Amino acid sequence: MNSEPPIQPVIMSGGAGTRLWPMSRQARPKQFLPLTGERSLFQETALRLSGPRFLAPVVIAGAAHRAAVAGQLDAVGVAPAAIIIEPMARNTAAVAAVAGAWTGRAHGDGLVLLTPADHHVADAGAFRAAIVRGAAAASKGAIVTLGVRPATPETGFGYIETGASIADGVFEVAGFREKPDRATAERYLAGGRHFWNSGVFLFSPSAMDAELHAHAPAIRNSAAAALAAARESGGVLTLDPAIFADCPSESIDYAVMEKTRRAAVVAPVDAGWSDIGSWTALAPLVGETRVSALDCGANVIRTDGPFVAAIGVSDLIIVATGDAVLVAPKDRAQDVKRVIDDLKARGRTDLL
Amino acid sequence: MNSEPPIQPVIMSGGAGTRLWPMSRQARPKQFLPLTGERSLFQETALRLSGPRFLAPVVIAGAAHRAAVAGQLDAVGVAPAAIIIEPMARNTAAVAAVAGAWTGRAHGDGLVLLTPADHHVADAGAFRAAIVRGAAAASKGAIVTLGVRPATPETGFGYIETGASIADGVFEVAGFREKPDRATAERYLAGGRHFWNSGVFLFSPSAMDAELHAHAPAIRNSAAAALAAARESGGVLTLDPAIFADCPSESIDYAVMEKTRRAAVVAPVDAGWSDIGSWTALAPLVGETRVSALDCGANVIRTDGPFVAAIGVSDLIIVATGDAVLVAPKDRAQDVKRVIDDLKARGRTDLL
Repeated sequence: MNSEPPIQPVIMSGGAGTRLWPMSRQARPKQFLPLTGERSLFQETALRLSGPRFLAPVVIAGAAHRAAVAGQLDAVGVAPAAIIIEPMARNTAAVAAVAGAWTGRAHGDGLVLLTPADHHVADAGAFRAAIVRGAAAASKGAIVTLGVRPATPETGFGYIETGASIADGVFEVAGFREKPDRATAERYLAGGRHFWNSGVFLFSPSAMDAELHAHAPAIRNSAAAALAAARESGGVLTLDPAIFADCPSESIDYAVMEKTRRAAVVAPVDAGWSDIGSWTALAPLVGETRVSALDCGANVIRTDGPFVAAIGVSDLIIVATGDAVLVAPKDRAQDVKRVIDDLKARGRTDLL
Repeated sequence: MNSEPPIQPVIMSGGAGTRLWPMSRQARPKQFLPLTGERSLFQETALRLSGPRFLAPVVIAGAAHRAAVAGQLDAVGVAPAAIIIEPMARNTAAVAAVAGAWTGRAHGDGLVLLTPADHHVADAGAFRAAIVRGAAAASKGAIVTLGVRPATPETGFGYIETGASIADGVFEVAGFREKPDRATAERYLAGGRHFWNSGVFLFSPSAMDAELHAHAPAIRNSAAAALAAARESGGVLTLDPAIFADCPSESIDYAVMEKTRRAAVVAPVDAGWSDIGSWTALAPLVGETRVSALDCGANVIRTDGPFVAAIGVSDLIIVATGDAVLVAPKDRAQDVKRVIDDLKARGRTDLL
């Protein structure tokens, strides 16, 4: 249908991802790693959001990752509409503001599909279908989130509670619930009205602009001015550093979503979504020939080079790179952050 | 006393040491690794056997390790009396025969102190004192072993049972007992008459020659002929390959010690002896800065380069090299051999 606005994917590639150390590093955050197959999460994300209604993607990334972004897109044959460099990190509200302003300028009221670069989605078709399901509401001014059907009573995620039905599989948002305790998470899982907040947003530039204007005007103004004053070089736009430096650093969830009355949610999304938030989120790599597990239970064993031999161990995370090795029980996956702290204390910045 | 014959250390550096994979490799067996400090076990061995009565060492090694032997000795300032290359491995009886023949030719009836290159001895002074204690018996024709006071009911070692006393702390050998079962090993430990066979031998060339003549004449003749026909090049003697190839391959224990009536044992030897037979034999390396163990119990963690981070694990062996990593519970230390088999099956000869 010609009346349907195009969808502009904007990929946020600003994450650090220390929880996947030693593979993820400051210079090589997790979105650029081939964690789930031959392609990186970033490449998967770019490819996932292509199709009839989707425009060529825009990528917003840090200056240190400019070459990785361009190289990885080129390697999978994706020509980006733009690469926008953040001179410094200013959190997701600023990114949403830049994404809206860029898209408004380029495509009028085409819809922005704002997505993290470091998530894994097993079923890209179902994911695109969920986006298309939310597009009508977004065209009418809703700021649409994707509510992933929870698979476990996860306590590390934010949840979205559904309200009144807007359309088939699209609801008003009754509320955002940050990281619940275990009992609450189990209640959410049983109740069927709470969904994992995927961190993906679909909105029209004008709607986001209005909400930022209402709830976070300093962010809106700084981001718009930094984009207007951006310098272009070799197809890459760099936001004006002096202006963007003054932009407040807030998450889009805090700055807009918890305050707006336009929030909507597509739910349930059943697309095999995972944020790969820790090593335990990863399935065994098919065809991995660099691991020998003898008399072993269910471990997460990953290598980017060294051969890994495990004998008689279970429920461990074992990750090997050429310069660092991690061994921990699966239930200590979140404590990888402590290794980062320890490395900082030791002055081993080469390993960060 | 001028009448005491000099002691000629002969270091047997022929071992493969697959049980310390991934650090030990065919090209770099465990005796060349700095497992217990800054020096390798081979270097420690050469330095341990120096002092007033000890001659400069002879080293018998495989052709592949010629450079390692020369380089490691040079690095610790030891000038060897000779480096003798075995063109192929023919076990320890042949080495004893070569050691005896070489020493007889060079020093008449100087005593041969034949020792593995890959053992660790914490107290070198006590070790030398034990050797000197056995020298009088060796001068009189005994083939003297060192009986290490057992610390645990080890089932993987051979034991020497003491017989009648010959001199203070020197006994006849009542028998050699190969790898006992657990109950027998506990009986040995409690009884006080059984000692670990250290694999170190002290003998005069003439005594060894007579015993080889009596019990293993083919070995004696092949070894002597291979040495007589050896080629010298750059201070290195290479045994004649065609002759040495025909030498039967037997251990000195089997070929001579279990048959001779000249066996004697110095016991107990209390010198902190260990054969470093597996990863569990190693104490933590003092001053190791490449390991971060958070909330960990007693693991054996070793690296020759990569940083190793362990969180919340106990009783594990974790060994990291640039191209391979091993993780196993301590009580599976002996199963490292199975990894070697698996690597062979995979054709990963680069990792052997």
